[in-house]
Amino acid sequence: MTWTPDVDLARTESATDALTSPEPPPFPTPPRWLVAIDVGGSGSRLVAVPLPAVPAPSADRPDADHPTDTPDEARHRTELTGRSVAIGPDGSDVADVVRDLCASFVVARTGPHGAPPVVAAAAVGATGLATLVPDPATVHAALRTSLGTGRTAVAADALTAHLGALGGRAGAVVAVGTGAIALGTDLRDVWRRTDGWGHLLGDLGSASWIGAHGLRAALAAHDGRATGGSRPLLAAARARFGPVPTWPAQLYTRADRAQVLGSFTPDVAAAAAAGDPASVQILTEAGRHLAETLAAALAPGLPPLAAATGGVLAAGPSLTGALARRFAALRPDAELVPSAGTPLDGALHLARLLTQGATSSTTDAPTPATPLVARAPWLSLGDEPPVPAPSTTTPITGDPT
Amino acid sequence: MTWTPDVDLARTESATDALTSPEPPPFPTPPRWLVAIDVGGSGSRLVAVPLPAVPAPSADRPDADHPTDTPDEARHRTELTGRSVAIGPDGSDVADVVRDLCASFVVARTGPHGAPPVVAAAAVGATGLATLVPDPATVHAALRTSLGTGRTAVAADALTAHLGALGGRAGAVVAVGTGAIALGTDLRDVWRRTDGWGHLLGDLGSASWIGAHGLRAALAAHDGRATGGSRPLLAAARARFGPVPTWPAQLYTRADRAQVLGSFTPDVAAAAAAGDPASVQILTEAGRHLAETLAAALAPGLPPLAAATGGVLAAGPSLTGALARRFAALRPDAELVPSAGTPLDGALHLARLLTQGATSSTTDAPTPATPLVARAPWLSLGDEPPVPAPSTTTPITGDPT
Repeated sequence: MTWTPDVDLARTESATDALTSPEPPPFPTPPRWLVAIDVGGSGSRLVAVPLPAVPAPSADRPDADHPTDTPDEARHRTELTGRSVAIGPDGSDVADVVRDLCASFVVARTGPHGAPPVVAAAAVGATGLATLVPDPATVHAALRTSLGTGRTAVAADALTAHLGALGGRAGAVVAVGTGAIALGTDLRDVWRRTDGWGHLLGDLGSASWIGAHGLRAALAAHDGRATGGSRPLLAAARARFGPVPTWPAQLYTRADRAQVLGSFTPDVAAAAAAGDPASVQILTEAGRHLAETLAAALAPGLPPLAAATGGVLAAGPSLTGALARRFAALRPDAELVPSAGTPLDGALHLARLLTQGATSSTTDAPTPATPLVARAPWLSLGDEPPVPAPSTTTPITGDPT
Repeated sequence: MTWTPDVDLARTESATDALTSPEPPPFPTPPRWLVAIDVGGSGSRLVAVPLPAVPAPSADRPDADHPTDTPDEARHRTELTGRSVAIGPDGSDVADVVRDLCASFVVARTGPHGAPPVVAAAAVGATGLATLVPDPATVHAALRTSLGTGRTAVAADALTAHLGALGGRAGAVVAVGTGAIALGTDLRDVWRRTDGWGHLLGDLGSASWIGAHGLRAALAAHDGRATGGSRPLLAAARARFGPVPTWPAQLYTRADRAQVLGSFTPDVAAAAAAGDPASVQILTEAGRHLAETLAAALAPGLPPLAAATGGVLAAGPSLTGALARRFAALRPDAELVPSAGTPLDGALHLARLLTQGATSSTTDAPTPATPLVARAPWLSLGDEPPVPAPSTTTPITGDPT
């Protein structure tokens, strides 16, 4: 019932499935893995690929456009799905979601003689990290204790979306899922974030925003209001949620209200495709909002390059057309390019960048020209020394405050 | 920090204060009390008045316009305030709020020899009753066990707002507090409700709606969006909530999100009064929404009579002007009258109506011409026989489903 925009169901394997799937073909020698995790409001995903025999890419030759282009990666790529993050009185439980996914990966890739997989680096992109997880150290600790590597990165999902969509290039990216947030950055000096304020304060044009406005149009028809009603949306909402008087109790007693709202977005998209004027209007407004969010993130000092990413963009041409037109009006100098990859691709890109400074028992990776630099609240780096064996349990992060 | 629209602070006495205030002047004989309670999203209130020596009003001569017009009532009127209702996984906790207020009343009015007050009838108007309290029997039981009377009424706050605003006359009333709901009724055959769907699905034009839109305008200025920003609202929101990045954690981790949003409405009203165009626009839109809610509740079969009630109407002429203009455009045949009283007055009116069928040890009240009739989910009646003494603990309600 939730809106899972980026999940490619044809390629995604559930955690349970992975435990029972056939053993992958054996490596000549045990591989070292890159692990990437995307934790979102509508689910979480892990992808792991074996490190290629070729050197890791240098910072001036990003390969995020081709994240799975080596034969080993394509053959042994491991994908798992997990639950969505929950927001409670203590903030979000990203670390628990990460720990569960890592445990499933270790079980799935433990060798025939019980040897656990060797992980070279791991990176997490997490929703709400900028505002609701006060201390990324808990996520670093979850990665380190689960995977046995101190080479870890914890990023806001806005940054992994950016890395995935622009492949490491500077510019602005708006990520549209259950929520909506844009980040304009060159990964160095400029870091401008816009929106991402959650379903009550913003996330304008996101799935939760579209769904909420769709349900309001349904209720306007139900109440007989003079304006704003949509009988097709009322019929669709009754089909999805049952009798109207039950809707408040279904929504307000749940912790995942934004996801429940977002679950109605496919119905709005379908009604718009069938010509419902209220639905077309909602998607048009959503596109305009997203364009304003994106334009405001394209700060001075950044190249005029921008992209939008997220499955909500599939809601239809009403949304994407309005987004493109409004963005062109606001920033006629800028190029709006298609997204090159998903936030999970961006997290994998980030994990790969982590290995650039690593010494390795199997490869001699070059020292990077421009190493990753931590930047709160967007990017936090685990600084555990890879050699000798880690013994302390206190992580050292970039700037967790 | 919450928006408490209807509370007259000059006249309201806190529960703690009541316990330490001077003993009221003694009655020649122990009085019989009418108790009325209003349970809302931003607080709860109890008012109790001694039954007048004159007969109770008949249904065709409502006296809600003058609820405290006898000398005894004015001298001995007791007012207490309590906490607001909380919405949890099991619905709202109206019964607990009612029990606490009743206990405070009994303590405050227990006689010098330890005799508890004798209650003739008690009525509750409660927020969310139509949707989030599946069984009003728990509220009847709280009244009966706390006050010792089986003559009880439990009503949705939309009904007590109606009774207070129109004094028992047929028509439509929109009640605007933290939420917004309208009810069109003749208390007999026509019962049309509009909006009241809560802060995520509706409550258009309410304090939570105005506050949320004000905070969005503040964040639009903070983000540098092309449209919709208000720097005065950004300054006001920083003064109230602190640094912008802390806002989501302050809001999304709380159970009373609608109240937190509504707490910003006075700032929007102040900014509008100072000429901020974005704030004026928000209040104007709120007024239009409220007019549509009210017009949709004025169903066929009702006289063309309507009123708006609630402290949010004090947000300024931008709101009330837009409400009046839009309502006149939608229903040029109808009269929009000033509200005659508050929802608490309406609950007291309801308690008074309950005594019309009662036999009494001190007065002989007439048999009513048109007795109250239960109507789910608006009005539920406790049917405990007043004579003999109640011994069962199972309440009989009108139609709790």
